Amino acid sequence: MSDKDTPPLTGKDLARKPRGFPDKRESLIHAQAGLVETITGVYRQWGFEALETSAFEYADALGKFLPDDDRPNAGVFAIQDDDEQWMSLRYDLTAPLARFVAEAGQSLGKPFRRYAAGPVWRNEKPGPGRFREFWQCDADTIGAPGYHADAEMIAMGAEALRAVGMAPGEFVIRVNTRRLLNGVLDGVGATSADTRLAILRALDKLDRLGAEGVADLLGAGRMDESGDYTKGAGLGASEVTRVLAFAQAGADTRAETLANLVKATGDTEEGKAGLVELEAIAKALEALGAPEGDVVIDPSVVRGLEYYTGPVYEAELLREVTGEDGKTYRIGSIGGGGRYDDLVARFTGETVPATGFSIGISRLAAAMQIMGETEKLDGPVVVLNFDKEDPTSALQLATELRRAGIRAEAYMGASGMRPQMKYADRRSSPAVVMVGEDELAKGTVTIKDLEMGALKAKAIKSNEEYREARPGQFEVPRAEMVEAIRKITEAQK
Amino acid sequence: MSDKDTPPLTGKDLARKPRGFPDKRESLIHAQAGLVETITGVYRQWGFEALETSAFEYADALGKFLPDDDRPNAGVFAIQDDDEQWMSLRYDLTAPLARFVAEAGQSLGKPFRRYAAGPVWRNEKPGPGRFREFWQCDADTIGAPGYHADAEMIAMGAEALRAVGMAPGEFVIRVNTRRLLNGVLDGVGATSADTRLAILRALDKLDRLGAEGVADLLGAGRMDESGDYTKGAGLGASEVTRVLAFAQAGADTRAETLANLVKATGDTEEGKAGLVELEAIAKALEALGAPEGDVVIDPSVVRGLEYYTGPVYEAELLREVTGEDGKTYRIGSIGGGGRYDDLVARFTGETVPATGFSIGISRLAAAMQIMGETEKLDGPVVVLNFDKEDPTSALQLATELRRAGIRAEAYMGASGMRPQMKYADRRSSPAVVMVGEDELAKGTVTIKDLEMGALKAKAIKSNEEYREARPGQFEVPRAEMVEAIRKITEAQK
Repeated sequence: MSDKDTPPLTGKDLARKPRGFPDKRESLIHAQAGLVETITGVYRQWGFEALETSAFEYADALGKFLPDDDRPNAGVFAIQDDDEQWMSLRYDLTAPLARFVAEAGQSLGKPFRRYAAGPVWRNEKPGPGRFREFWQCDADTIGAPGYHADAEMIAMGAEALRAVGMAPGEFVIRVNTRRLLNGVLDGVGATSADTRLAILRALDKLDRLGAEGVADLLGAGRMDESGDYTKGAGLGASEVTRVLAFAQAGADTRAETLANLVKATGDTEEGKAGLVELEAIAKALEALGAPEGDVVIDPSVVRGLEYYTGPVYEAELLREVTGEDGKTYRIGSIGGGGRYDDLVARFTGETVPATGFSIGISRLAAAMQIMGETEKLDGPVVVLNFDKEDPTSALQLATELRRAGIRAEAYMGASGMRPQMKYADRRSSPAVVMVGEDELAKGTVTIKDLEMGALKAKAIKSNEEYREARPGQFEVPRAEMVEAIRKITEAQK
Repeated sequence: MSDKDTPPLTGKDLARKPRGFPDKRESLIHAQAGLVETITGVYRQWGFEALETSAFEYADALGKFLPDDDRPNAGVFAIQDDDEQWMSLRYDLTAPLARFVAEAGQSLGKPFRRYAAGPVWRNEKPGPGRFREFWQCDADTIGAPGYHADAEMIAMGAEALRAVGMAPGEFVIRVNTRRLLNGVLDGVGATSADTRLAILRALDKLDRLGAEGVADLLGAGRMDESGDYTKGAGLGASEVTRVLAFAQAGADTRAETLANLVKATGDTEEGKAGLVELEAIAKALEALGAPEGDVVIDPSVVRGLEYYTGPVYEAELLREVTGEDGKTYRIGSIGGGGRYDDLVARFTGETVPATGFSIGISRLAAAMQIMGETEKLDGPVVVLNFDKEDPTSALQLATELRRAGIRAEAYMGASGMRPQMKYADRRSSPAVVMVGEDELAKGTVTIKDLEMGALKAKAIKSNEEYREARPGQFEVPRAEMVEAIRKITEAQK
């Protein structure tokens, strides 16, 4: 399978991996597993049940809903099966769910409420923080036509983020509906695709350019500081005012935002329908006890995936964080979702109302790592091994410790005392146990408390003094080993 | 991407998935997650730390170690990256670990002891119980030359299987070394590849044909009952006796088996080296407290993966089970491992001693399902929804129940009372809560205990009587709802 034009790699050059597929170490894996456990726990508490599908689906069953469709595989990893049908690795957990629901048909019973956690794959250009494999954790309700089902997704998403430790003000879930924006566009007479795109692009710059700059872009056009000119969307003055009023409708409470939107969206069918959606969602959010600060209505939200048909939700971390490299990061989007009433209809012809929420587990775990919130886990007690030919004593002692519930290992390498001590340090061991010939003869073990030893060693000046004092080191009868180790590990907690 | 010779699928025909990639439901997912948690818990307790690699590796970095190499992709799923390098989905967790170790080089520090759990993919012919995606849970020690490291893997594997509920006698880990068999083959003068293969094939039939049939196959050949003749390996009588003695060396204890093997393997270099390995392992197993019944030395074990260099281990479930279809299944192999000292050397040129153990999580979870040992999980309390326009009451009550720690949902579909009750039954709900206009006016809720209701309903003859009695159903003040539900869920435990 190697490229015929280049010689096959050998030696160290072989030891490389594709970009965008990171290896994960202890603390990140632990953080990720904790996130999955906590979030699926919340989903379960809200009545959802587990359903997991496999990595592969037939490519045509997945459909093409990714925004990245200017690449040959439209953003997915695809491969031909033995019978030359194309299979793709899933790019999210929603499209496979729609296939499952369509395949199960009437036998499934509805509503069907499921949760799932697992990796998804996107064949995109990898970059810093942009992975090609990442975990998501989803909940979906299939067969729920009412917008209270959307509100449930949103309120549950907020609860899940609180459950993993996000305080009020550290995150927000923004809610919008595609109909509202369509209504506004209809209302200002923006019917051509070009004009609508120009308006969307202008609105996307509100944060950066402010209302004045965006007004120029919505109207005749705008010259920036470098002298570059951007052609405007060509709206008249009153239309510009209405679009801006819409984009700036966000207020302190969901009720105020809705009141502003009523003024801004005017009289179009789509706009009115969108307001009905958002009003129903706001009312249900109230009943579900979703705090105002956690969930806001925000007319600027647009989700990238193309299968959404109504309300869309976007979860964002608000905290700015400083990474180990001293740079400031904005974490940004860590999840979202929306209503996708037509996704099952691709298969069955019948519209099946559906809504779902997805949390980006890898994104959130990476954020926790940047924020310094991943835990450094305790290492095992290491029983040093002084007899390479017969490690029986070390194996027995480690077994004894483990049977007492203590995380422990007998040293497994081929090195002498000093590297074994270094190994224990590197593993963040709370203590090491040593049994040499002396100890064997006396029926004792020597224990070194590595944390106390390090503390005491700071006060010691010379190597000679160190060897004399042996800080943190003491000898106990073998029968008292477990008790002595337990004291050390408990003191270090 | 669809095949140009056939029209694209539409409608229900689209809703299909590739074979060998099963969807997983609640109880299986729960069983699998429990297995991963318990087994990685044991690995952690023995001092291993988490390291996870991604699904994709460059194909040449993975190497070709699968036995299935008569197919174009040699058993893997491969795809070309943007720069036309071939990437493969990992077929196990060991080959990516070797890449990681080689890439990290000296900075990693050794021994490096890691555990991992995750899916692997094999591009094999799917069949009943033969999946193309399945989970494994591995532990590996890199940089451990002593055979006590192998013994540790074996003893830990046995402890992990006990930890997930396998009783003594329900499983066994069989230990062998490739050197021993090579020694025997050398000892009987079986130097040609053909003869060696004929001997291995004959030994593989020991269970089915017994010693006499295998003796024929090792010697001149054998005619079976149908009259078919199989050519033999052509060994002389004393060689046949020696090979059979080797194959039948298994005894009640590891020490006896070793004594039998000493007699059978004779004087070859490889045979003696193999015995040294097994003796060291047996001694360390003693120190690690591995019960005789859990771990046996079995000269018939051969592992499929080609990277093993010394000791190999195979874990097998012994229980025969009867499935729901009435058929009897032998679960067979559920894990194994071995020493792979040359795998890192592919990259670095330097031999890095390594040994690992892998448990087949999907296999084990499927086994538990067949054995009826997967748990049926409790459903949520369902709050019925009588007002499609305004579901506020149902949402509030479900929120209240969840805040009290009770798994609960408001009904999200669009159906009437009867289908809502059916839904609650299908979800195995312990109880439903109903609030109609009457209850709203009175400030009460009506609760139905579904388990008690079903019990009482059995004694009821007519529909009329049923409607009169409303078995298991009662009304409480709204403020007492949580307490009443808690009583029901606790009584059902």
